[in-house]
This record gives sequence, structure tokens and C-alpha cells, in this order.
Amino acid sequence: MKLEEFQNPDDLTRASDEELTELAENLRRVIIQTVSENGGHLASNLGVVELTIALLKAFDLEEDRILFDVGHQCYPFKLLTGRKDRFSTLRQWQGISGFPRADESPYDLFSSGHASSALSAALGLARARDLQHGSGHVVAVVGDGALTGGMCYEALNDAGSSKTRLILILNDNGMSISGNVGALSQYLTFLRTSKGWIHTKKTIGRMLQGLPIGGEWLYRHFSNFKDHIRNIFVHDTFFSSLGFRYFGPIDGHNIRAMTRILNRAKQLDEPVMIHAMTQKGRGYAPAEDHPDRFHGIVPFYVENGEPKQASQASEFGPTAAQYLLHGAETDPRLTVVTAAMTEGTGFGVFQSRFPDRLFDVGITEEHAVTMAAGLAKGGMKPVVAIYDTFLQRGFDQLVEDIGLQDLPVVFLLDRAGLSASDGATHHGVFGLSYLAPIPNFEIFCPATVSEMLKVLEYALKQEHPVAIRYPKQELVCQTRTDDPADVHRWQTVIGGRDCVIIAAGSALQLGEKAVERLKQWNVDCGLVHAGCIKPLDRDALHAVSAQNIPYYTLEEHSLIGGFGSQVAAWCVEHDVRPPARLFGIPDRFIAHGDREALLKDAGLDAGTIAEAIQKDLKRKTV
Amino acid sequence: MKLEEFQNPDDLTRASDEELTELAENLRRVIIQTVSENGGHLASNLGVVELTIALLKAFDLEEDRILFDVGHQCYPFKLLTGRKDRFSTLRQWQGISGFPRADESPYDLFSSGHASSALSAALGLARARDLQHGSGHVVAVVGDGALTGGMCYEALNDAGSSKTRLILILNDNGMSISGNVGALSQYLTFLRTSKGWIHTKKTIGRMLQGLPIGGEWLYRHFSNFKDHIRNIFVHDTFFSSLGFRYFGPIDGHNIRAMTRILNRAKQLDEPVMIHAMTQKGRGYAPAEDHPDRFHGIVPFYVENGEPKQASQASEFGPTAAQYLLHGAETDPRLTVVTAAMTEGTGFGVFQSRFPDRLFDVGITEEHAVTMAAGLAKGGMKPVVAIYDTFLQRGFDQLVEDIGLQDLPVVFLLDRAGLSASDGATHHGVFGLSYLAPIPNFEIFCPATVSEMLKVLEYALKQEHPVAIRYPKQELVCQTRTDDPADVHRWQTVIGGRDCVIIAAGSALQLGEKAVERLKQWNVDCGLVHAGCIKPLDRDALHAVSAQNIPYYTLEEHSLIGGFGSQVAAWCVEHDVRPPARLFGIPDRFIAHGDREALLKDAGLDAGTIAEAIQKDLKRKTV
Repeated sequence: MKLEEFQNPDDLTRASDEELTELAENLRRVIIQTVSENGGHLASNLGVVELTIALLKAFDLEEDRILFDVGHQCYPFKLLTGRKDRFSTLRQWQGISGFPRADESPYDLFSSGHASSALSAALGLARARDLQHGSGHVVAVVGDGALTGGMCYEALNDAGSSKTRLILILNDNGMSISGNVGALSQYLTFLRTSKGWIHTKKTIGRMLQGLPIGGEWLYRHFSNFKDHIRNIFVHDTFFSSLGFRYFGPIDGHNIRAMTRILNRAKQLDEPVMIHAMTQKGRGYAPAEDHPDRFHGIVPFYVENGEPKQASQASEFGPTAAQYLLHGAETDPRLTVVTAAMTEGTGFGVFQSRFPDRLFDVGITEEHAVTMAAGLAKGGMKPVVAIYDTFLQRGFDQLVEDIGLQDLPVVFLLDRAGLSASDGATHHGVFGLSYLAPIPNFEIFCPATVSEMLKVLEYALKQEHPVAIRYPKQELVCQTRTDDPADVHRWQTVIGGRDCVIIAAGSALQLGEKAVERLKQWNVDCGLVHAGCIKPLDRDALHAVSAQNIPYYTLEEHSLIGGFGSQVAAWCVEHDVRPPARLFGIPDRFIAHGDREALLKDAGLDAGTIAEAIQKDLKRKTV
Repeated sequence: MKLEEFQNPDDLTRASDEELTELAENLRRVIIQTVSENGGHLASNLGVVELTIALLKAFDLEEDRILFDVGHQCYPFKLLTGRKDRFSTLRQWQGISGFPRADESPYDLFSSGHASSALSAALGLARARDLQHGSGHVVAVVGDGALTGGMCYEALNDAGSSKTRLILILNDNGMSISGNVGALSQYLTFLRTSKGWIHTKKTIGRMLQGLPIGGEWLYRHFSNFKDHIRNIFVHDTFFSSLGFRYFGPIDGHNIRAMTRILNRAKQLDEPVMIHAMTQKGRGYAPAEDHPDRFHGIVPFYVENGEPKQASQASEFGPTAAQYLLHGAETDPRLTVVTAAMTEGTGFGVFQSRFPDRLFDVGITEEHAVTMAAGLAKGGMKPVVAIYDTFLQRGFDQLVEDIGLQDLPVVFLLDRAGLSASDGATHHGVFGLSYLAPIPNFEIFCPATVSEMLKVLEYALKQEHPVAIRYPKQELVCQTRTDDPADVHRWQTVIGGRDCVIIAAGSALQLGEKAVERLKQWNVDCGLVHAGCIKPLDRDALHAVSAQNIPYYTLEEHSLIGGFGSQVAAWCVEHDVRPPARLFGIPDRFIAHGDREALLKDAGLDAGTIAEAIQKDLKRKTV
């Protein structure tokens, strides 16, 4: 069956094995093609093509509910649930999202993007069904990487004891985003390679062949059903301890075997876990060979997998990693903690050089933060590298185990600001709101890579926690070249007589563009770069305020709890003239798309800012 | 050995069994006496008296490190590590803290109070030791309740795979704070009651007795060592799957058996888990009979365990629970989610009436939030009742699974504001900082119980998330009796001609006192009650601002990201005259003690506020 012919999941029920195989090939082709043009998550999506077909064969979406954890594996599902015609708009402004989005389709029940939460949501849905005496199935598809997250265990523990009917598909591709970590991962490998079923199969086979009548016939059928039989015989202890009935391991690329086991699971009135083995990158050689590189990827040439445009901009993470690599040569206390993002944060090079001093603890931001606290208490100098949005998971630990203990841990918060094509779940726009209220923290938002290095050098010398937030790449600025002598001081990068913009961190580029625009309208606007957010630079605020011209704050961060709010509150508390207006992200979630579109949507493009300032100035002079 | 004679842990090594038993009795007596006078955590501390003696016998605190998870079980440790002379100041201002506090003793490595984090910290310490080629032992004592928390599993998974040498003591008293929940709890019960060792013991016993020579002698010794033998034979599958070597179950009240197994664990170069069975409330009949009631307790009569002073003030939680109980009779969608705090949040009565509609999910705030999201998505109307400070754990889920989905879930945040005797880890002073930036949330801080009921009635009708923050008890106010017709409107409760205080939520009482004080100084200060924090009442702000007298915000919450900051930012954004000053908790952690002492320390007592306002007014008129 060609994808063009496919109408709806009912078609799958009627299709032959060959037709399904053709459909799978079609799905792969479209996914590879689209991601090669738009960028996106490739390897994990290629791994679940057959699994998704089996799910849609076995379940009825009008009654049953399927949740994909994180959503790195939702493309085949999107293509088969009404979105194939718009799929070419993947990750584009107002196009199809790269993650499940509830506002996109009734079949995307939850908008998701952070790991390990699907089973909790599924359990809630299943309990709601039971309280209403409903009958549908609830299915959560969770990767083995997400299984390192404690939240997933919390849900297993709760579901297993309440014996609520639901089906957990463990999509085991043996990878998190980088390679997988943790004891449970080793346990899964043990299950995957368990010889139990093979022995049993041989025994049964011999037994069947030895039967006086019909043995050969039975044996043939037994061999056909071997995948089916297999799951009966592998003895799991872990998931069973948590109250789940375990079936597996099953070949997740065998649609027939998967459908059969799914249909069997539907018969059971208890929590069931199906352990499906899949291959990341399946069907596209470059992705099979380098599943980590093809996890999330920029546009590439299908022929060879090479990126279409090598990035020219300096990247913060890899530069920080290089700096720390050198530091670690002389300072044996320097250690790094990442949460399944060693490559994403740029620390692969550090891991290669100092494998025993980089701790990739899996998708466990809570544990990562407190484990780093233990390292610091034990005399180490830990640097924790996590994306700004994912560190939300460690908020309580930042308060209780870092701030309260006042420990010298350095946090590198990558992907701060809008994350463009990944969308709402990935924008790093709450970092200041959750970090600033924690006592004992200093917070920096360098605008350039060289400034970041200065700040990092400073941070490593402190006896207190320091957070450094930065986007993936440097947003190149025209005007500012010198690095701060004192990292706490804000710098005037453009003088102005009519008004001043104080731009926090990487909003400096945006500030420059607004100043440029205002210039065209004969407004002489100055620009101050605020690289240190906590403590605020009081002298700079006094100085700007004393100029007696309107001034504005600008940030790529939520207005509530952000830089501008903190400046406003400080001014009020200290009787200093406050800003005339605060520019930042309004109180709503921002979607996915190219950066320019998102900034415009948030009212943070240079034109909108400049216009607002011009209007403000006119109003004040009238 | 009497506690008075005890000098330091070396004494334990030399003491006879009888002396240790006497010491244990002494410890119990002091703990019961002190808690009966000061209030505190009783049952859990009585359960670990012998365990703590064994720990201090087996380990050398100059080199080894012992971490108590949460800290509900640190009193015996405090008494035996240099704090017995000051123990009568337990939980009092500048006295001994009820939780481990790093600034109190070098033996309290981490200040703690939130659950499930000790193993992460211990793993960090152990790794730091290994990197420095150190030799000491790292021990984490974790309750079976804390084991429901996912963070603990994250640490097990990491420690088990890295094979780092450390010792985890599972203090299994079969209780969380309320009864224990979850599949793992059932599994622990299975281990505790496992017949494996009994059978083995019998077999060995018979075998020994049957020996021709020396059998009786061996059998007697075997019987003496039965606790020791026992641990060898119980076969664990769960913790072993996670890479831990399991010993247990051991009688945690048998000092000799515990010491022996601890010494054995010290020999091993891998992660070891010792499963100790203890009894909550051990040695004090009322606490043995009602361990949940004696978990955290107010001062009581030792003779019968009755509280010395029955609280007169109305309590928010139980009243909300009663209201919801009535609602649940007619609305089958009404469901409740708690995180091991069914009694603490006042929902025990709801659980008794609707056991299938209250979900106590264990100490799992992350899962609790997202499971509630699933309930809401499935058509239920979930109310999540969690302490303000503990919901910090669910911050990411509040953003991703509640705010982003815009689901109708009502959050009841109990113990908002200063929690007095419990101290830094328990104050609910960040709730607004982490909730306010999340789009789609409404946030209320009612001052009275009747106002809370109005807000709750409103909240249950919404199609969006609503958070309601309140302290344990109503802080009785003199002036205000009427309930709001519109819950979003702030109310002027006292008119004033010189200035106005806008008091957020339960700071109303404090505002009243400040107004009273100012009156004595002939300052006519008005008082506005802000019960709705998000959205801010714009009309009220315009009105107060238009009065052209200075106005002030007042809150029992961190200034950074708090109510005042939000008012200041809003005023700046909307060109409204901002407050003259913001009163709230400064940027540091507040210790434990009586409420008055803490308010004074934070500069939030009526006198300090009134003085600051008077000074401000004088300055402005000069």
C-alpha cells in the first residue's frame, strides 16, 4: 500500500503483509525526505515505523488512546492520523509540530516534549476511564531512555500496585539520546539477550518433532510463532516486582508479531508491559550507523547524510567544554555532570578525554543536580550542563540541595531563549523565573562566547552556586567587542540621547537591531548590555536612571519573573526611576517555527520594539 | 550507659549489650520528653534509636559520612553527635533544628527536609572520594516511604551501574507518613515476610542437630546468629536488577545484628543495600498504636499522648476537604490526588468516604501532577493537594503537563508562608515565583477559610488550571468579614488617608497589625486585601495608585518573583504609579523557630513594617 492511497487506520486491518511492508517503506521515504529538508528527529522516528503500524492495526483511535512519551517518535503516527498532506510543513511556523500537539489533532492527546511523563498521564486517563466505566484501552509508548527518569518509575509503582488496566510499550532501541546509561539499561540488555527462550524453543521444537503424529506440522507452526512464543518464556523480575505483567522481548519491526502481542495484551485486565526491540535509524544507512548524530538533525543531503549548511556561528556549549577540558588537565577537582545530553551540550570531547570525570546520569535532572551537590560537598568542582528547559525538572533540588547548602556548583543552561523549530516544550524562557528567587545563586547571561568564557572563569573560582544561561549559538552583534573586566558590570555598548535599551544576555543582538531601526526614524537610542542578572548592576541602573531619558528592558524570556520584572521591583524598592516599559515574552506559550516568526509573534521583533519605543517617546513629549 | 555519661561514639565500641540497651532507653526518654514539650517528629525518630547506635558503632564519623534522607529520623543521631546538651531547644528559634542542618554540626553533611534525595548526594560524595582515592564509607539512610520517590530510583540506577562503593540502609517501617503505597511497598512486604530464610534456617538447623559430633554446639551458635544468617538467604530481585547487593531483612532494633551486618557491608567494594526493619513509634505505646498521628506532632501529655492545646483556629485543608466531600456526592467527576500527605492536607475524611476517588500516589509530586493531568484529560475534575514547598518538585510538570495543556486541575497548596518550627526546607515562600510565570494558571491566596471556599467553588467551575495557596491555619483578622462577590476583586478592608498597604493573602493579619501600630503614631494607613494574585486586580491597582498617597505591598513570600515584584512590573508596564516599597521575605533562607521570631528576622514584623513606612512618609514630606 502506498502512503498516497492510505486513507485511515481501517485500511491497515485489510492490508496484506506485503502491502504493510510497502507502506512502511513509504513512511520511511517521506520521513527521510522531509527531515532532510526541514531538520528534525530522524533516527528515533525511523525506528518506530512498524511499531506504529501495529499499534494502529490493533487499536481503535475512536475509543483507545495512544500516548507517545517525549514525542521523538511521533512522525509515523502523524502521517497515519490525518496529517500526511501537511507533513511537508514539519517544524515550520504554523506547520506540523515535531512533537505531539493537542491543538493539532484529536489523536495527539497531550502536547509533549519532556521525557518520562507519558505513563503518568496514561494512568490518569485509565483511572478516569474506570471511574466512568469506560472500556477503551490506554497505551503509552515509552523509550528505554525515558525509563531512566524517576517519574516513569513513580508511575510504574503506582500503576503496578493499583492494577489499573493499561498497556506500556517499552520501545527499546538501546539508546537514550546519546548511548544509554544506568543499571536498568544493563538489565534490559540482559532481557534482550536472554537465552531462556532459545533453550525453551529448542526443547519444544525437539519435543514437537519427536511426536509420532503431526509433530512436523506443529513444529512448523511453532517456528512461525516463535516471536509470539518467545515472550512467554523470558523471565523478568524487575517489572514484575512493580506489578506489571511483562511480555517480551518482541521484534518491534515485525508487524505481525507486534500486532499479535498487542491483541493479546488487550485481553488482560491489568497493567501490561510489552518490551519491543527496535533499531534507531532503521532503513537509512547513515542513521543506522550514527543514531546519535541523526537523533535531532539540521537539513541534510539524503545521498550521504551530510548537513546542507555547516553552521558558521560560534557555539556556546562546545566552547565551554573545550575550556573546561583544558582546566581539567590542571585541576583534578573539575568534573562534569550531564543528563543524557553529553553531545547536545557539547561535552562529548570532555567525555572522551576524562571518561571518569564526566557523569552522564541519564534523563534524571533531579538526581543530576543533587549528585553534583554531593560531588561539591566531597571537594570536587562540578559543572552541570543541562538545557534551560529541562533543568525545570531539577527546580526543587536547585533550591534545597544547591541554594540552601550554598555549594560551589556551576550550572551551564544551554538552549536558553526561544528554541525555534522545537517549539513550546523546548523554549528556555522560564530559567530566570525559577533561578532568581533561589538565595545564594549568581546568574549570568553572556551575549558572546568570549564573554561566556570570562564568566565561566569567574564562576569556577566561586564558593557559591553560579548559573550561566546561553543559547545554542552566538547571536552575532556588530558593536560590542570588548570583554568585561568585571563580569558583574553592565556595559554601555551604544550611547544615546533620546532613550536607552538595557538588553539582557543574548537579547543584545535584538537590541542592536531595534536601535538601528530607531536611528532610521531619527531616534537616538542607547544600548546597555546586562550580562549579569543576579545581582543586578545597581550602579548601572542608577546611572541609566540618572540620565533622565526613558529606558527599557529587553529579554528573550518570560516577562513574569524575568529580567525586566526584577529591574522594576529593584527600582521600586530602591527609589530609582523604573524602566518606561519591559519587552519580553508575554504570558502565553510560544509555538514552533523559524526564529523570526516566533519573535514577531511574541512582539519581540526589532520593528515592533522600535515602534513601541517611538510611540512611547512621542506620547511623553506631547 | 546513661545518656549523661555518653561522651562520644567511641564509648559505644566499649559498651556491653546491656549498656547499649540502657542508652537506647535513655535516648527514647529524652526524645519523648523533648517532643512532648516542643512538638516535632516522634514516631520515626523512636524507630531508629538502635539503628543509629549501630551506625555509630560501625562507622567512624571522622572519616565516614552518614546522610539521613528527609531528616525525620535524625534526633538520636543529633543526641549522639554533640548536641545532647542543647537538645531541649529543639525546633526553637536559634535552637537545634528538627532536621539535619549543615550549619549546626559537621556531622550533618546536608541540610535536608525534602524526601528521596540522600542517595543522590551520597553517590556524589562517594564519587568525589573515589576520584581523590579516599577510603571512607558513605552511608545513606532512606525510609521506605522515600523509596516511592523517583529521584531515589534515579540514584539507585546510577549507583548500581557505576558500581560505586556505598551503603544504602533501607529503614523499612512499612509507613510513609500516612500508610505506604505503591507496588514496591508490596514488594518490600513480600521480602519482609519471605519464608525463604525460615525454611533454610530449619533445614540447616535440622542438619546441624543431626551431626554426629558438635552439632548441638553449632546449632546454638547458628540460632544466635539467625539474624545474620537470615540476610544471606532472602532472594531479592528488584534491587539486584538495579545493581545493588541486597542484605536483609534485618531486625533494625537488634544492635548486635545490625552492627555485624554493617561491618560486613564495609568489606564490600560495591553498592550495598541493607534492608532494616524498624517499628515506627517503638517504645512509646501511643506512637506505636498511631504512628501516623505521632509522625509530626504538637506538644502533648506524655501520660496519654493527648495534645496539650487543641488548636482553636480554623484549618484550611480539612475545611476544603469537607467542602469537596459534599461536592463529590453530586459530582462523580470530582477526584483528589495527594502525595503521601492525605492526613496532612486534611483529606483523610475524603479518603474514607471515597476511597476509589482519592489517589495517594506516594512521595511523587512529579507523577501526582501529571497523573492529575491525565485524570482531567479523561473527563475528571481533579483536585491536587500538596504542600507549597513540596510542589516545587512538580514545577516542570506544572509547566508542561498542566499549563501547556491548559487543563482544569485545581491545586491546593497547603502550608504556604513560613512554616515556623520546621524551618528553611519547609517554608512555602517560593510558590508564587514558580507558579506565576506559567501561562493559563490563575492563582489565589485567600486570607480566611470562608474566602477559600468561595475561591474553591469558583475554581471547580473553570476550564483552566487554578492554584489556591493557604497556610495551615487561618490567621485571624479583626476587620474583614465579608466574602468577595467576585473572587478576582481585591477588597479595601480599612480606609486610610496617609498611605495604603496591599496585603497578599494571609499577610492580611500582618497588615492589620502594622496599620494598628501606625495608628498609634497618628499615621492613617489603609489596607487592601489582595486575594487574587494572577491576574492582578488592575482596577484596584489603578484606584490605589490614583489616591496619590504612597502605597506598599506586603506578602509572606520571597520578594524576588513574589506578589510585590509582579505589582511593580505591572505598574511599570502599564504606566501606573508603582508601590513606594515592597515588603516580603529577603533574598536568603529563613531558619526555624516561632513565627514571631521568624517574622522579625525577615523584617516582616508589624513594628519593622510600620517604622519603615513612617520613615518613608517623613522622607517624602520633607
